[in-house]
Amino acid sequence: MKVVEERLDYLPGKKRFIFQRSDIFTFSMDAVLLAKFASLPKQPGKIIDLCAGSGAIPLLLSQRTRARVDAVEIQKVLYDLFKKSVEYNGLEQQIYPLHQDILQLEEEVSWGSYDLVTCNPPYFPVTKNHYYNSNEQLSYARHEIACTLEDIVKISSRLLNFNGKFSIVHRPERVVEILTLMERYQVEPKRLQYVHPRKNKEANIVLVEGVRGGKKGLITLPPIIVYGEGNSYLKEFKEYYEQ
Amino acid sequence: MKVVEERLDYLPGKKRFIFQRSDIFTFSMDAVLLAKFASLPKQPGKIIDLCAGSGAIPLLLSQRTRARVDAVEIQKVLYDLFKKSVEYNGLEQQIYPLHQDILQLEEEVSWGSYDLVTCNPPYFPVTKNHYYNSNEQLSYARHEIACTLEDIVKISSRLLNFNGKFSIVHRPERVVEILTLMERYQVEPKRLQYVHPRKNKEANIVLVEGVRGGKKGLITLPPIIVYGEGNSYLKEFKEYYEQ
Repeated sequence: MKVVEERLDYLPGKKRFIFQRSDIFTFSMDAVLLAKFASLPKQPGKIIDLCAGSGAIPLLLSQRTRARVDAVEIQKVLYDLFKKSVEYNGLEQQIYPLHQDILQLEEEVSWGSYDLVTCNPPYFPVTKNHYYNSNEQLSYARHEIACTLEDIVKISSRLLNFNGKFSIVHRPERVVEILTLMERYQVEPKRLQYVHPRKNKEANIVLVEGVRGGKKGLITLPPIIVYGEGNSYLKEFKEYYEQ
Repeated sequence: MKVVEERLDYLPGKKRFIFQRSDIFTFSMDAVLLAKFASLPKQPGKIIDLCAGSGAIPLLLSQRTRARVDAVEIQKVLYDLFKKSVEYNGLEQQIYPLHQDILQLEEEVSWGSYDLVTCNPPYFPVTKNHYYNSNEQLSYARHEIACTLEDIVKISSRLLNFNGKFSIVHRPERVVEILTLMERYQVEPKRLQYVHPRKNKEANIVLVEGVRGGKKGLITLPPIIVYGEGNSYLKEFKEYYEQ
């Protein structure tokens, strides 16, 4: 009999709980950094998180805003964990998980109405020779099986209202594609931030934000450096990450 | 009578001299950083520098390589200073300044033959409402009057041999355009590096390198941070910059 390794964890900052399954998918630093990076609507507003997984981003966003957060996840097992977390944290009046394929949202959402779309998508393109994870849930979370980067940008652009923001976290090697796609779908890149594991290491995470119908003018924020000499977080990073 | 403020300066590292005119144009940190950032040909090879100005990049490159360096400058007064510097440093057998418009190189160069193209171009697009510098030479150096970013990328791509490298320094707000143009002209972006004046400030310089006909795979190098608390260079930066 397979043991289901469900567990209850804190999210960084210890203000939100999250149900996870270590055999399938646990939240990453990337999701936490995106939840901090994203520009929130000034008015109460409306947010939607795509590829929501077990909901780390919506749960963290709820610490920063009272805006409604819709969130779409295709995998039933992750959606179930997410729903459970929303209830456990008492956030049923703010976070609305939706078990759906983002390519099938036609009748499910109000298009052109969101102030912010966030997304921590699968990072790896599907290629013939690419190694797939034998664990199906992990493959979905890591590879562009259910949707491509282009699908995400295209759908996000349609979800946003004019001047609405699109915030995505990804791998730095995909940045050309991200910026090109954003321009193609009228989401003008406005803010870029790189995360380096150490100050003398290449970036391994990039955060990008654009504005639907925005004017040109991209700024590159100060770099985020995670670790110092040893294996512990730099003081500055720890304060930012765990606040 | 106007005094011509010609002067002889050291380039950082004090291994090369440069003639400059402070009333027209003096080399910037950007040029020095590009000369350090650019990947040199492994074989003796052949380099060309576009928008060479008074020649800071070719002069600095000659410290790192014995490759021949051609260099194109449209402004006669800068070309003259450059030529004088080449002679003063005794580099006539390595550096070949060319007084020409980069749009008029047809008969002047051997196309598809260069291993490296470097360029520290004018940073500001020409727009109707843009403030122009009343000093004509400065305007040429700062604004895209003689050539646009697209001209530069297109010409660089034609100058390069297959697998040849294109290294450019620019302002971070133009990075979307740079990457898009590089892809359009088959120069695949491979290395990106941001320079921040201080660790908590937005980037103000970006260095980008691509490979003609290269495979996808962009890395983002560790950030370069210039100043510490006060107004003096950080130790790490000083060592890098002045080496």
